[in-house]
Amino acid sequence: MPHTVQASTPLELITALVDARTRGDIDAAVAFFEPEATLIAQPGMPLKGPEAIRGFFETYVGWRPVFEVSARDIITTGDLALHMSAWTLQGTGADGQAFTLSGRTTDVFRRQPAGHWLVMIDNPWGTALLG
Amino acid sequence: MPHTVQASTPLELITALVDARTRGDIDAAVAFFEPEATLIAQPGMPLKGPEAIRGFFETYVGWRPVFEVSARDIITTGDLALHMSAWTLQGTGADGQAFTLSGRTTDVFRRQPAGHWLVMIDNPWGTALLG
Repeated sequence: MPHTVQASTPLELITALVDARTRGDIDAAVAFFEPEATLIAQPGMPLKGPEAIRGFFETYVGWRPVFEVSARDIITTGDLALHMSAWTLQGTGADGQAFTLSGRTTDVFRRQPAGHWLVMIDNPWGTALLG
Repeated sequence: MPHTVQASTPLELITALVDARTRGDIDAAVAFFEPEATLIAQPGMPLKGPEAIRGFFETYVGWRPVFEVSARDIITTGDLALHMSAWTLQGTGADGQAFTLSGRTTDVFRRQPAGHWLVMIDNPWGTALLG
């Protein structure tokens, strides 16, 4: 019952989200986002809400990605957290060609009234959006 | 009455905060932070709460800073916003020596129930915290 995972810390949230999308459990991955969450699929391509985010994960799973994090820092204050990590993704496109992406994410997580954490902003590109 | 400024958007918030600290109005600057807000004064030096943040601004004002932003992006979703900017600060230390700092901030702002925006996380160092 992956849907029922409740992340009790920001680190548990990102760990469980990466685990869900890595094993291709899109329902579980989408369930880690607030209803109004925004995911920056690419610079200039913000996706808002569960259906748009689900569409991104369907593409993502198709890449058969190998996702690795080399550094991480989380600033938690009150019921909000800023999650930053340096990541690399190796994938395979629909054309069969291998590709590599990398970036430094700047995500915003929020603790819900029931106590578990969800993603509100998922921005894998971080300040690279500034050009 | 600078204390009464109410920022109705994330951009108004950061503009008013920078204006307040530039003119040395520390009361006004501190008033733009939530009570539980955290400010990363330097990598490894998080300051939490109004008194600690006030102390930082007292130092900051002493630098007689010239603060410039060359690029900015704000991701707003629901009542949360991720603010990113590329900034440069030219200042003068207590020893009279000029110095220059620069970075890419990754800040978290939140709209309050009354409608105005406040800072919850002020991280001028952005993903440079990852090393």
